[in-house]
Amino acid sequence: MPTFAHPDFASERFAAAPDARFVPAPADGVLPEHFFSTTNLPTYVKVDGEWRMPREPRMDAALVLAPDGELWMKEMRRVRAGEPVAIGYAEDGSEGIYVYASAFLGDVAGEGEFKFMSTEVSRERPIDYAHMARLLVEERERGGYPVWVAGPALVHSRARNDMTWFVEHGFVGALLAGNAVAVHDIEASIFGTTLGMNSQGGGTVGGHGLHVRAINRVRAVGSIAKAVEQGLVKDGIMHACVVHGVPFVLTGSIRDDGPLPEVIVDALAAQDAMKQHTVKATMAILVATALHAIATGNMLPAFVAEPVPGERFPAIRELPTICVDTSEFVVSKLKDRGTHQAFGVVTNAQDFMHILRLYVERELNARAAVGTAGQSAPAGA
Amino acid sequence: MPTFAHPDFASERFAAAPDARFVPAPADGVLPEHFFSTTNLPTYVKVDGEWRMPREPRMDAALVLAPDGELWMKEMRRVRAGEPVAIGYAEDGSEGIYVYASAFLGDVAGEGEFKFMSTEVSRERPIDYAHMARLLVEERERGGYPVWVAGPALVHSRARNDMTWFVEHGFVGALLAGNAVAVHDIEASIFGTTLGMNSQGGGTVGGHGLHVRAINRVRAVGSIAKAVEQGLVKDGIMHACVVHGVPFVLTGSIRDDGPLPEVIVDALAAQDAMKQHTVKATMAILVATALHAIATGNMLPAFVAEPVPGERFPAIRELPTICVDTSEFVVSKLKDRGTHQAFGVVTNAQDFMHILRLYVERELNARAAVGTAGQSAPAGA
Amino acid sequence: MPTFAHPDFASERFAAAPDARFVPAPADGVLPEHFFSTTNLPTYVKVDGEWRMPREPRMDAALVLAPDGELWMKEMRRVRAGEPVAIGYAEDGSEGIYVYASAFLGDVAGEGEFKFMSTEVSRERPIDYAHMARLLVEERERGGYPVWVAGPALVHSRARNDMTWFVEHGFVGALLAGNAVAVHDIEASIFGTTLGMNSQGGGTVGGHGLHVRAINRVRAVGSIAKAVEQGLVKDGIMHACVVHGVPFVLTGSIRDDGPLPEVIVDALAAQDAMKQHTVKATMAILVATALHAIATGNMLPAFVAEPVPGERFPAIRELPTICVDTSEFVVSKLKDRGTHQAFGVVTNAQDFMHILRLYVERELNARAAVGTAGQSAPAGA
Amino acid sequence: MPTFAHPDFASERFAAAPDARFVPAPADGVLPEHFFSTTNLPTYVKVDGEWRMPREPRMDAALVLAPDGELWMKEMRRVRAGEPVAIGYAEDGSEGIYVYASAFLGDVAGEGEFKFMSTEVSRERPIDYAHMARLLVEERERGGYPVWVAGPALVHSRARNDMTWFVEHGFVGALLAGNAVAVHDIEASIFGTTLGMNSQGGGTVGGHGLHVRAINRVRAVGSIAKAVEQGLVKDGIMHACVVHGVPFVLTGSIRDDGPLPEVIVDALAAQDAMKQHTVKATMAILVATALHAIATGNMLPAFVAEPVPGERFPAIRELPTICVDTSEFVVSKLKDRGTHQAFGVVTNAQDFMHILRLYVERELNARAAVGTAGQSAPAGA
Repeated sequence: MPTFAHPDFASERFAAAPDARFVPAPADGVLPEHFFSTTNLPTYVKVDGEWRMPREPRMDAALVLAPDGELWMKEMRRVRAGEPVAIGYAEDGSEGIYVYASAFLGDVAGEGEFKFMSTEVSRERPIDYAHMARLLVEERERGGYPVWVAGPALVHSRARNDMTWFVEHGFVGALLAGNAVAVHDIEASIFGTTLGMNSQGGGTVGGHGLHVRAINRVRAVGSIAKAVEQGLVKDGIMHACVVHGVPFVLTGSIRDDGPLPEVIVDALAAQDAMKQHTVKATMAILVATALHAIATGNMLPAFVAEPVPGERFPAIRELPTICVDTSEFVVSKLKDRGTHQAFGVVTNAQDFMHILRLYVERELNARAAVGTAGQSAPAGA
Repeated sequence: MPTFAHPDFASERFAAAPDARFVPAPADGVLPEHFFSTTNLPTYVKVDGEWRMPREPRMDAALVLAPDGELWMKEMRRVRAGEPVAIGYAEDGSEGIYVYASAFLGDVAGEGEFKFMSTEVSRERPIDYAHMARLLVEERERGGYPVWVAGPALVHSRARNDMTWFVEHGFVGALLAGNAVAVHDIEASIFGTTLGMNSQGGGTVGGHGLHVRAINRVRAVGSIAKAVEQGLVKDGIMHACVVHGVPFVLTGSIRDDGPLPEVIVDALAAQDAMKQHTVKATMAILVATALHAIATGNMLPAFVAEPVPGERFPAIRELPTICVDTSEFVVSKLKDRGTHQAFGVVTNAQDFMHILRLYVERELNARAAVGTAGQSAPAGA
Repeated sequence: MPTFAHPDFASERFAAAPDARFVPAPADGVLPEHFFSTTNLPTYVKVDGEWRMPREPRMDAALVLAPDGELWMKEMRRVRAGEPVAIGYAEDGSEGIYVYASAFLGDVAGEGEFKFMSTEVSRERPIDYAHMARLLVEERERGGYPVWVAGPALVHSRARNDMTWFVEHGFVGALLAGNAVAVHDIEASIFGTTLGMNSQGGGTVGGHGLHVRAINRVRAVGSIAKAVEQGLVKDGIMHACVVHGVPFVLTGSIRDDGPLPEVIVDALAAQDAMKQHTVKATMAILVATALHAIATGNMLPAFVAEPVPGERFPAIRELPTICVDTSEFVVSKLKDRGTHQAFGVVTNAQDFMHILRLYVERELNARAAVGTAGQSAPAGA
Repeated sequence: MPTFAHPDFASERFAAAPDARFVPAPADGVLPEHFFSTTNLPTYVKVDGEWRMPREPRMDAALVLAPDGELWMKEMRRVRAGEPVAIGYAEDGSEGIYVYASAFLGDVAGEGEFKFMSTEVSRERPIDYAHMARLLVEERERGGYPVWVAGPALVHSRARNDMTWFVEHGFVGALLAGNAVAVHDIEASIFGTTLGMNSQGGGTVGGHGLHVRAINRVRAVGSIAKAVEQGLVKDGIMHACVVHGVPFVLTGSIRDDGPLPEVIVDALAAQDAMKQHTVKATMAILVATALHAIATGNMLPAFVAEPVPGERFPAIRELPTICVDTSEFVVSKLKDRGTHQAFGVVTNAQDFMHILRLYVERELNARAAVGTAGQSAPAGA
């Protein structure tokens, strides 16, 4: 990963730039014309002659100056009438706002070089599980906050066991998912099926209604947490989250049955709940979901910023973002919506989870073998 | 399409069957154990010795007996404590509930015959646009209610013109979509781009923020309808819906920017709003969206029921359901969630819309030519 | 797997049937009009009042009666002028030919039952690696002949190691592939790259030409076998095949560079070479190739026939056929061309190989643990 | 399309460069170590102090100096022992060979600009049929040589009529395809089916054998041309090629039934036959085939070179290359094998053909309307 250096703000280009201009929002949830539309990249804003970085970076938001002088990136709908909103289109600093777009570009191909395999996302690329496993183990060691975003395919069969293992062993900072993930997970715990299929993929008599029966039982006891406490749900991903205190956000959608009690059915409240975790994220793993992956990508900065005592700017590193799907399309779509840092893995979610776990176990064993066993204790402990 | 005949309820099998059993719901939004889980197929319930069909058929719901003796299929969350809910698992009538699963099976292949091209959904199948065009024209003639469900790909470039044409010419009973469809449509009207691309697919400077600017302007005037009235939105799909009085439901999701004012952000309220149209649907066209297609499929009966004066049972015909996507997966997924009647078209949404319109125009011309010009007047007139 | 019983040829239906009719082929490589077109299913032909099974069953061939009274299924191009060819269209025995199409149908869903997950091939189905591993281990124990058919994706990175392991440990009866598989495998051995990518998927300077340089070196020494002997190729799949005496067929295509010396560039000679292995196959594993999978499917019977001493008919069981691809399309296409017995696994080839090997190792360990260690010795030993 | 200018060979960089070095090939079909591996981009070689362009440019070939001083790009297998072959790895001219890799780069995005929709190949991009239609019509007007490369999906149903129309109206310089395309086309002419499906996609009794019966009849008369003459084949693509004298190359593969008489079953002879057309190509349209598209891409230069009287170098323009497939994967794969100039259209082949024809007809009508009717006469006339 290339190391990152902040721009040299002492240089002529930045020193000569004017302050950014701010205009009051005309109404609640409405931005002034010509508002600056943010990106997920490191961004610097000149206020009172000084370049500063706004908080809670994300794309497609507004730059708002708080009364205490703090700068925020805020979603349009959360901006109140009268709040000062930055305006301008220039991203090169010439109007007081600089987007450091080339911050994380690695060694780029020479000008016009003829190359094979130039497509970024392809089932033909080798998948470097060892590297991903190392990232995850390092995150756990340094107390990072890996956010997992999962679609229903993660719950089928073996993948459910593997995801449960990651929760139990301290590799999950938070789990973001929809109603269906929790439903299938709980259907598996109660009935041993997902969408009416058994774990070999065979059908079961009356299987089509089992997910609704599972939802009904949880609604009857009042919450997933209570269903775990009362022994209705005995294993699986949600069980592990409850038992190990791993926070989860379940968001509702128009295709939900039920839904389960904890599900947040208001899409905007759901975004707010998700964002409480994305602002803390130090890594993101997006598996088998276009909707949730893009939703998370929309609110996720492309970088992690960590305060450095005595320094004006935080230390910056790219936010490792892994996106897994059976089709190239979903990963490319995520990138096309601006989450350029996403690394695509084109495979079946079940297999991804199984091999990733295998490599994490190997990494842990290798570290234990060199006498650093103390570092690999489960974070959930 | 095979003709449909109701079962012969005078036969021994049905005459000897017991009445269905009903048990009160234990709490608001909770069903009794062993509740009967409905399907989208023609269903008959024996009450007081008489076989009857419940109203508002859909899958994954409960059978509820209203105080006035009417039978309904109701979503779990809408059932109130104490309401009588049918119980039982048998779908063969032996416990008073009969699901006519083979109602619409056409001529099935002979037992074990060796065949090529047995996969139902494949890009290799011919697409019968002439047949689909005829269905649409006939729907318009008989005053049917075709429900269109659209994903954002429908708005890119030419497809937007074609969808607008269908709205303007009376082929759309209602439009169900998400925030993004309306956003891209309005971005195209105001800025001439979608997701920052121009209509040739090229990028534009600052293009990444244009969809947010479009949302902002509509929020500033208060609604899409007002944006049309005030001339902010001058053309396109939403414009046509407003001008021609075609109802639309825009539902929110966690990936939405904005959202636009009319968007229903509560997922359950959104389902209720969609269902107001699906219960009236006489045809369904689902284009380029997995989420909305499956959501609609969940609440859509597999059949149209039309009352016949003097008859106890309505006339039943299969509900033509067309699902268009670039990948076989989405169509298969829709079927795997129970929408077996869906006919899959594997192609690009832009091209589908263009050719479908072409064939509809040809069908209209052919009908006009044989002296039935009066029938092909635009419904919007 | 359902057990198989031959039809009861003593029954009226078969006893009353006439002998099949044969007509001489009009010219070399040309069949008589109304020739019977074969399938890959168990087929019985009545000759001289006796029902018999032809040899080398495959689809799309002709039924030819040899001078010695033996029946063969022969490709059109291999039929010589004057050879007696069966005619007729009936597959139900009424004209002396019976195709047992329902031979392997398992327990079929009840008539018209409403079901979820009815699509046969889907990334949403659980993958039963334990079952596939057991099949492979049993094949090795009983001295079976598993034919592997591989596309180039199998050679990228880790998958190459895993495929090599299967060859080395006696799980491969024969390997059928194209020039590209061998080229990439040898490029990896000589240069450490595939298509110019290193094993982490990164590019290399001048990488685009490395596969051609690899080909050139093998052409210089004269053959792959010599390249192994002389130490030019030191590891990998082709190396393992040469060292362990596992036969391979490399077939040419219009997209080949080189080709490598062993490649059979005549498509018909190549089909003949492949068929020498498919007629012996007791299992087929088709990974990451549409062309080779369908080519093999075309010539592969749907069943294994093993002679039973003292019995007129062989014992028949379904030929386990596993088809792996990232997309549902390829597997469905294979089935649509008549290889209905194929079991589809929708995943990345690299991951498939890795997990399959893992499960095979577990199966071997489990068997070793129960005291049958002798059975799990490498077949190549 | 950006205009092209040859490098300034008078500049210091090129003037100071040494001549390219040539080494004799050590054996027939074997290149010397360190041979220069060609690309499909404009390439200049310094011989006797003068920069020159080799003939028959293609990727993955060798640079061979003929006795008459002419430079050729030749496939390894076609190089004879003793022929002088250029060596070296540098593509920047420093060793006497210059690959003009940035020749056709259009206006590139600014350094590190944040953009949406940066993926090149996506079903979400608008398809500019008007532009493609204009290119085709201009090719016909200037007497260009558009090479069409087609897979079997092109023959299903309506696409067959549209492809036939393009052949009949002079838009096809040559057709490159496999046995299957011709087989399905002829099956459609004789039996009205493709792969046993009728034009609505329904099955037919005994349909699985019809393609073999079609092949057999053509083999009986001896050739496709004779089948057309004798009235066995009355319409369709092959019929149009024969009647209008449009050359076709049918290449064999391991999955072929038959094959048809004209099919070239030797893969190397087939490559040579294809190359006779690719060296003349002024446009390439690759529809619904991975194998044939990549095979053609391998031998296709990225540019068209047209001699200019009195000029040392030809006029160069990019070779318009359109690749159509339902999946992003095939187009990306083509690019990953070096055919970077390919423009991807992600849609169903049937729909592509239909809309392209529609736009070509509109373009012709528009040109006729402005009084240039004479230019739009069918080239076949």
